[in-house]
Amino acid sequence: MGATVELAEFIAGTDFDRLPASLVDRAKVYILDNLAAGFIGSVQPWSLVVADLVRELGGAGACSVFNQPWRTDPSRATLVNGVMMGAFEAEHVGHVAHPSATVFPAVLALAERLHADGKSFLTAMLLGYEVVCRVGEAQTAATERERGFHNPGVNGAFGAAAASGKLLGLDARRLAWALGIAGSHACGLVEFAWEGAMTKRMHPGRASQLGLESALLAARGFTGPTTVLEGRFGYLNAYSPSPRPEKLTAGLGQEWLAADLTIKAYPCHMLSQALVHAIATFRARNPLDPRRVERVVISGTFHAGLERHLDPAPRTVLGAQYSIPFTVAVALCYDLSDPFVFTEALLSDPFVVDLARRVEVRPEVDPGHGWVPGGGHRITIEAGGRRHELAAEGFPGGPGQPLDFDGAAEKLYRYAGPVIGRAACEKLVGLVGRIEELGDAAELARAIGRAGEQSAKEH
Amino acid sequence: MGATVELAEFIAGTDFDRLPASLVDRAKVYILDNLAAGFIGSVQPWSLVVADLVRELGGAGACSVFNQPWRTDPSRATLVNGVMMGAFEAEHVGHVAHPSATVFPAVLALAERLHADGKSFLTAMLLGYEVVCRVGEAQTAATERERGFHNPGVNGAFGAAAASGKLLGLDARRLAWALGIAGSHACGLVEFAWEGAMTKRMHPGRASQLGLESALLAARGFTGPTTVLEGRFGYLNAYSPSPRPEKLTAGLGQEWLAADLTIKAYPCHMLSQALVHAIATFRARNPLDPRRVERVVISGTFHAGLERHLDPAPRTVLGAQYSIPFTVAVALCYDLSDPFVFTEALLSDPFVVDLARRVEVRPEVDPGHGWVPGGGHRITIEAGGRRHELAAEGFPGGPGQPLDFDGAAEKLYRYAGPVIGRAACEKLVGLVGRIEELGDAAELARAIGRAGEQSAKEH
Repeated sequence: MGATVELAEFIAGTDFDRLPASLVDRAKVYILDNLAAGFIGSVQPWSLVVADLVRELGGAGACSVFNQPWRTDPSRATLVNGVMMGAFEAEHVGHVAHPSATVFPAVLALAERLHADGKSFLTAMLLGYEVVCRVGEAQTAATERERGFHNPGVNGAFGAAAASGKLLGLDARRLAWALGIAGSHACGLVEFAWEGAMTKRMHPGRASQLGLESALLAARGFTGPTTVLEGRFGYLNAYSPSPRPEKLTAGLGQEWLAADLTIKAYPCHMLSQALVHAIATFRARNPLDPRRVERVVISGTFHAGLERHLDPAPRTVLGAQYSIPFTVAVALCYDLSDPFVFTEALLSDPFVVDLARRVEVRPEVDPGHGWVPGGGHRITIEAGGRRHELAAEGFPGGPGQPLDFDGAAEKLYRYAGPVIGRAACEKLVGLVGRIEELGDAAELARAIGRAGEQSAKEH
Repeated sequence: MGATVELAEFIAGTDFDRLPASLVDRAKVYILDNLAAGFIGSVQPWSLVVADLVRELGGAGACSVFNQPWRTDPSRATLVNGVMMGAFEAEHVGHVAHPSATVFPAVLALAERLHADGKSFLTAMLLGYEVVCRVGEAQTAATERERGFHNPGVNGAFGAAAASGKLLGLDARRLAWALGIAGSHACGLVEFAWEGAMTKRMHPGRASQLGLESALLAARGFTGPTTVLEGRFGYLNAYSPSPRPEKLTAGLGQEWLAADLTIKAYPCHMLSQALVHAIATFRARNPLDPRRVERVVISGTFHAGLERHLDPAPRTVLGAQYSIPFTVAVALCYDLSDPFVFTEALLSDPFVVDLARRVEVRPEVDPGHGWVPGGGHRITIEAGGRRHELAAEGFPGGPGQPLDFDGAAEKLYRYAGPVIGRAACEKLVGLVGRIEELGDAAELARAIGRAGEQSAKEH
């Protein structure tokens, strides 16, 4: 049996009762984080462009969209919600994958359409997460760093197809077709990084949408290659210069890769999370006038894709969130625990722009891609004749510091509160806390649409 | 100026008056061929699965679909029409690209939506064709043969984005964004070939749809990387092991690659066109009882992807159309100038199945990918104690034998006549013949929908 079929059988054969209780608890944390990402993403200009297009194109069905009063079909709801979740460097990641914005939108939309119960919702979501993490591990980081494929774009559809196929109740044969079709939808280039182009924001949502459509097609008898992952002209060989196909199924059902995803603490690239946290911790104890900072040096081990993250003068918000010098400068000037600090206005903020030019990154690049988030960087700040040495060693939500339910709820309040209000956030926290008891998970999906227009009829 | 921006400026700066008259004549031949492909594709089961899904998902707008009484939005009309055009090995190809099913559906749907005139239709279509041919030449055949990416799936969106952007009247800056977004939509694996999976049928339509959406997004200000083709993490480096980026713009505006596309004469893979034609020509002069054929040997130079085309016992229609032994057996038993001969029933036709096992391919593989359609194969048929030597040297529509307007109209009658009737075909031929005079090219688009329900209201 090939790995694709083995994964399909695993998806078909795994029900809620087989999920470890601790994993279900993690899923609730992830859902809260997904909602946080979706709501802050829902107010970003690039999200609204996609939302406008989707609304104009239309679609039958009553699937909800973050912070919008209208609804659409499950495919287009998945696209927009995924774009919103991937719109602001807010969603959790891990295992060379972005399960959050690639799997969750498909589950949310399809569960709303099918009126799936909470246990089915959790099962589908966790299976989708697990599949995309395993594909990510098997492709390895070389897919992005050497070939230039953006991970969520290229592997996201597999997770969405797995989750959607599970919700649809597909048998193993059709699940393998769904994965096969998903493999024909792997797309997304990191070329966006140089100009900070908006395509980066689109990749997870598009992957989720096309993964969902893959499952909908397979359900109707459309076939895909059942060797899509491991085959000679399959995904791993096409997209990765150094695949590890054994990772697709090693310990499947025993070891859950989905259990240890990294949750971001700040609205910037994963590379800067620990740096920002070290600076925030330092600033909380030591008043620091950013105008007196003469020089900042960041040193330590980075991964081989570092050069995409060194622009001292980014021209877009994405470029700023990707840039280590710029993000460090922002963190020295502002409190990034408030994600709404990161706006277009920062790009011309004289303090930040000036300071970013004085942030120097001295990397020791690890060609073995051994970099992990938050692993041992040093920050040297020279300010007012003094020299401060900071150790960047992790962040809340990072490796070894998993966020618990309350921590994730607190992130939701910070990220979604200014958009939908505290009361709406509390309602969502309540729903997520008892999601396995929901008879109809559409209750959660409907709660993401704009308040006051929840009863709009299907058109 | 990079190649992506140079292409964008070429698209923006080229109007109908700059198109050579001979190229416009070729475009009419291509349009007839596109209609032939769409109508025969419209009755294939895999097309109907996609049509059913699209109809269920819905969409606002009144864009027509081949042989269907309902309409939908331009994006989903493009998907279905592209799937139909790519559904039966019927569409023209060339320059490592499938301009037909990847560019035409987007032009047809958007022209209907915008009520573009005939000259704008032709201009957009030819620019889209030219762009996708140039991307194909630049990626080289190694993208498919070595990496396993299916050409129409990975480069098709560029052509559709170029054509759609032209119809939308985008300036060069936004056209470059549209190409940049299209680059994030390059997907499609040839892994389908082993099992004959249906994903192959989906690739051109999906590429066309996503290219169209790329242009619609760029028109609204969504940005894509303006170095998407030539950039370090751009399309050519990601998808091709041996790109030739200079091909993107060499002789741009002087030399039109779109002028010499290959039109298929028979409903099978390009590899078998000349073989089938040689057999058909032979059979017309020499009665041959297929039951008396003892052995058939095919020899000559093939390209490096040959092994995907050697299955003597395919299990799907696609597998049969891809298989040289099976297609040769069909050609020895039936007249393939009638494309409707190629049905599911052939897979269990005892004469064909039995004969296919006795067809032997003795390839001299050309590692330099120098293979061209119809280039010098030998067919040896041993039957009833006699030995017949056939030279397979081209076919009508192949290199050096371009189909003219009447030839393309004749193909349309053969491919579409049994689906929509002779009179409807004649109406289409008339419209295409004077397309540059049409004030509203929607007239052509509306004529592809099912007769009698053309006046259905937009929903």
